[in-house]
Amino acid sequence: MVINGIQKSSEYLKQREELINHDRALRADHKRDPLSPAETIADQFIRKLRATEASTIWSADYPSIPHPFPGMEFLTGRSIITKTKIYSILSKMPKGAILHSHFDAMGNAAEILGLVLQQPAMHIRCVKPLTVSNIKTVLPEFQCLPQEMYPSEVTLLTDPSYKNTWISVKLAREMFDPKLGGPEGFDRWVIAAMTIDPSEAYGTHNTVKKIWQKFGSTFGLYERMLHYVPIFQEYFRRFILSAIEDGISYLEIRMNFPYKCLANDGKSLLSDREIFQIFDRVLNDIKAEMKSQGREDEFFGAKIVITALRMIPVQDLEPRLRNCIALKKEFPHLIAGFDLVGHEDTCHPLKYYLEPLLKFREMQREARVEIPFLFHAGETFGDGTEADMNLYDATLLGTKRIGHGFSLIKHPKLLEICKEREIAIEVCPISNEVLRLTSSMHMHPLPALFNHGLHIVLSSDDPSIWGSMGLTFDFYQVLVSSELTGIIQLGEVAKDSIKYSMLTSEEKQTVLTAWQRRWDKFIESVVNEEMTTRSVE
Amino acid sequence: MVINGIQKSSEYLKQREELINHDRALRADHKRDPLSPAETIADQFIRKLRATEASTIWSADYPSIPHPFPGMEFLTGRSIITKTKIYSILSKMPKGAILHSHFDAMGNAAEILGLVLQQPAMHIRCVKPLTVSNIKTVLPEFQCLPQEMYPSEVTLLTDPSYKNTWISVKLAREMFDPKLGGPEGFDRWVIAAMTIDPSEAYGTHNTVKKIWQKFGSTFGLYERMLHYVPIFQEYFRRFILSAIEDGISYLEIRMNFPYKCLANDGKSLLSDREIFQIFDRVLNDIKAEMKSQGREDEFFGAKIVITALRMIPVQDLEPRLRNCIALKKEFPHLIAGFDLVGHEDTCHPLKYYLEPLLKFREMQREARVEIPFLFHAGETFGDGTEADMNLYDATLLGTKRIGHGFSLIKHPKLLEICKEREIAIEVCPISNEVLRLTSSMHMHPLPALFNHGLHIVLSSDDPSIWGSMGLTFDFYQVLVSSELTGIIQLGEVAKDSIKYSMLTSEEKQTVLTAWQRRWDKFIESVVNEEMTTRSVE
Repeated sequence: MVINGIQKSSEYLKQREELINHDRALRADHKRDPLSPAETIADQFIRKLRATEASTIWSADYPSIPHPFPGMEFLTGRSIITKTKIYSILSKMPKGAILHSHFDAMGNAAEILGLVLQQPAMHIRCVKPLTVSNIKTVLPEFQCLPQEMYPSEVTLLTDPSYKNTWISVKLAREMFDPKLGGPEGFDRWVIAAMTIDPSEAYGTHNTVKKIWQKFGSTFGLYERMLHYVPIFQEYFRRFILSAIEDGISYLEIRMNFPYKCLANDGKSLLSDREIFQIFDRVLNDIKAEMKSQGREDEFFGAKIVITALRMIPVQDLEPRLRNCIALKKEFPHLIAGFDLVGHEDTCHPLKYYLEPLLKFREMQREARVEIPFLFHAGETFGDGTEADMNLYDATLLGTKRIGHGFSLIKHPKLLEICKEREIAIEVCPISNEVLRLTSSMHMHPLPALFNHGLHIVLSSDDPSIWGSMGLTFDFYQVLVSSELTGIIQLGEVAKDSIKYSMLTSEEKQTVLTAWQRRWDKFIESVVNEEMTTRSVE
Repeated sequence: MVINGIQKSSEYLKQREELINHDRALRADHKRDPLSPAETIADQFIRKLRATEASTIWSADYPSIPHPFPGMEFLTGRSIITKTKIYSILSKMPKGAILHSHFDAMGNAAEILGLVLQQPAMHIRCVKPLTVSNIKTVLPEFQCLPQEMYPSEVTLLTDPSYKNTWISVKLAREMFDPKLGGPEGFDRWVIAAMTIDPSEAYGTHNTVKKIWQKFGSTFGLYERMLHYVPIFQEYFRRFILSAIEDGISYLEIRMNFPYKCLANDGKSLLSDREIFQIFDRVLNDIKAEMKSQGREDEFFGAKIVITALRMIPVQDLEPRLRNCIALKKEFPHLIAGFDLVGHEDTCHPLKYYLEPLLKFREMQREARVEIPFLFHAGETFGDGTEADMNLYDATLLGTKRIGHGFSLIKHPKLLEICKEREIAIEVCPISNEVLRLTSSMHMHPLPALFNHGLHIVLSSDDPSIWGSMGLTFDFYQVLVSSELTGIIQLGEVAKDSIKYSMLTSEEKQTVLTAWQRRWDKFIESVVNEEMTTRSVE
């Protein structure tokens, strides 16, 4: 294909079309079977709607949003997103699986606080009396206490004589000084500590380094709020139900082990097996519930990706890997794989853990279990930094998927390997943006990865912290920041999330078949929407 | 190369090294001849210095800079950059050619104002009397007037009775109300209109769309300030001299034609040929001056890339292309190629001009001249937008280089074609960042383009507007935002700027030979610096 000779525009336009097709040939929406007539209508309708909303809802004036545009900073644009019809359509789309989210950050912050408030064992404190001037900087600390340790005397958090003592969360809320907003002021204070707000992400903490400080601080809070069994199991149940409502039919959830969860007595710790038993029970209950509603097509369970923090000393990893194997033997259907987590820019690189990670394979052989690596790697905009180099190690260690792979586009050979070996990339668009790897979706490498033919799944990472439960928001941001990606590409992403899950081939077939049925219905509903819109015009 | 079987870490590390080398094999610094011992020392020294400065100068507290980091927003980080030793080293590096900058925006804003102040013909006005409260929003307007139109009565810009009348620039400045800062306040006012400041790029105008409004307004100003022959030629002479001082030995400068430049009388317009004659004379004078100083190795001239605005109606293009051919016949040594310029996101796409562009080749054949296309394309973060699609047309029309190619990384087939046909990409790092395609150098696609083996030249685009004359600042931003790119890669970029220029093969050989001599000296000076540093430590 070359051009230097062309003079006729008809010939030129033909070659142009060929070149464009050639350039896009690796995309999932180009490789798939031809669209059905309904898919064609739905695709065109959503493209038209996207253009309309870009020039209406996204072009309106908003007092608190200086520069609205589709694909803009999520925390600022969220309130506009939920006004759009595209958001409402996407919320009904069957989205396949969530393959990259962290257990402790998958809920709704306000709901989590609600669960905490129901438990008399839950207490709160802070380092100094709260005042109007320090409430934005003094952080709450939570603790589950055994009954015998409930405080006998109580000083309120807002009392000038308050001295870092525990107080029941419920009481602290009820008696929260009206000058600080009373109970609602209490909620605002706690939720601000549990989440990242726009003034932090795009103002005071507007670098990767600074936002990770805030991000890290929220995790400490969730751990204390969630790791108490009555809260833990209800929290889990709710986020699974909410995922189902968002069109998600399966999850692989990253979870640190040992997962230190307090038993009902508020004193003793659950064993890892007890955690898995609860996990299993909750999932089975939900499956039964779904079945009783005739909705068994909509949910197929969840598995855990056991993780360790990439801060632990190398010698501590082997015992964890042994534990991982023991758990896999007991709960083979509940364990999807193993991963190391934490801020790649500042924590140990994968290479640091090389010896135990190489040994892990041998240990698995001996134990006759298989626990694939599902490594975070390249969650960085560094070029040749250790975090970027993690991509080499993840690949060499045989990872089945790559968590984030934000810097993957820089690596021609690794792109090739990921395509050949079908290593799927777990892309977390909103997470990357809030954590300042990219300033808006337009600067995200995702469109390049789509075009280069990588196998992509989309995920939410830590939705508690940015208020994006489910996958609708992530799908939305991806759809509206590209002219190329339409609903068909998102459908392929959803399919790939099943295909590249750690389900068995038979399970995948079942889930995919159910997904296809739901997809066809979804497309039908979009076509109906199109007809209604047309008849109104 | 695969790994699943490896258990020994020694074997693993060997494979790891192979994989990394394979992944980086397309980079210019990997493809070149082995480093000389001096190059090795210089490279290591600069890498060490980069790390040191990252943890010292870049980690210090600056009252006006909330989050300093190497590669940060240029307009905010500029004052830190100039404090670094790396900046001072790079300022001495021989950088090859500037291949992508626009004639009207290649100087220093304050110096341009200085030139304007020397010309009695230069007048200024604004739409209403300037006050403390409106000085940030009311823009100056310049005009060269013929002597008979000099105003007989004068009202000062800051006089409450002032009514949009012309006043001599010199007088306006001298009499500028002390309440608005007197003459220095005048300078601040004019220069603010000529440049983009951090509060605009990163605050009030922090989207591509908004910053282009400000960017466009500066161009209107430069046109009126520069298009008067005594200013024009002195401005040109100065920016060439300044480029030479920055280690640049050749330039290809984009310039809109017809270039409406007023003659000495302030009334009549120069013809295009007169412009080229001045251009030729200034260059010859400078070459003679350099020769007289024994520095003929440092400068080899400049050529013009004739441009038209991509806003003109399609039927207006053909006459311009004819003019372009006529000029090329008369000044073959001064014309490098043809391009269309303007904001790709909002102006006509290349495809709009297809007919005349296809015809241009035929016109050239008939006239026996060759005027290569050097198209701007893909200066956008759009995905599948018209601006992004310009890349297809630029390629199909046989462009010899691509201006910006910011969105090129998204196009697997086009990447291949650019590599095969050696279409060099003119990357303008600071321009892209100030114009909000990327928020810092870390999010720029350049490292990916380097690794994918594209032929890259770096350029400054419109340095008047962001205060980055020469190439040192652009080279600096690229060097400090990567761990991979070192001085050797920058050396290859400099070489490629000669190789992919529109000089003849013989000229290229001469310029490259001279560059190599200067490079060897430069490397020697860095090695000396290293020795001095070591002896101090």
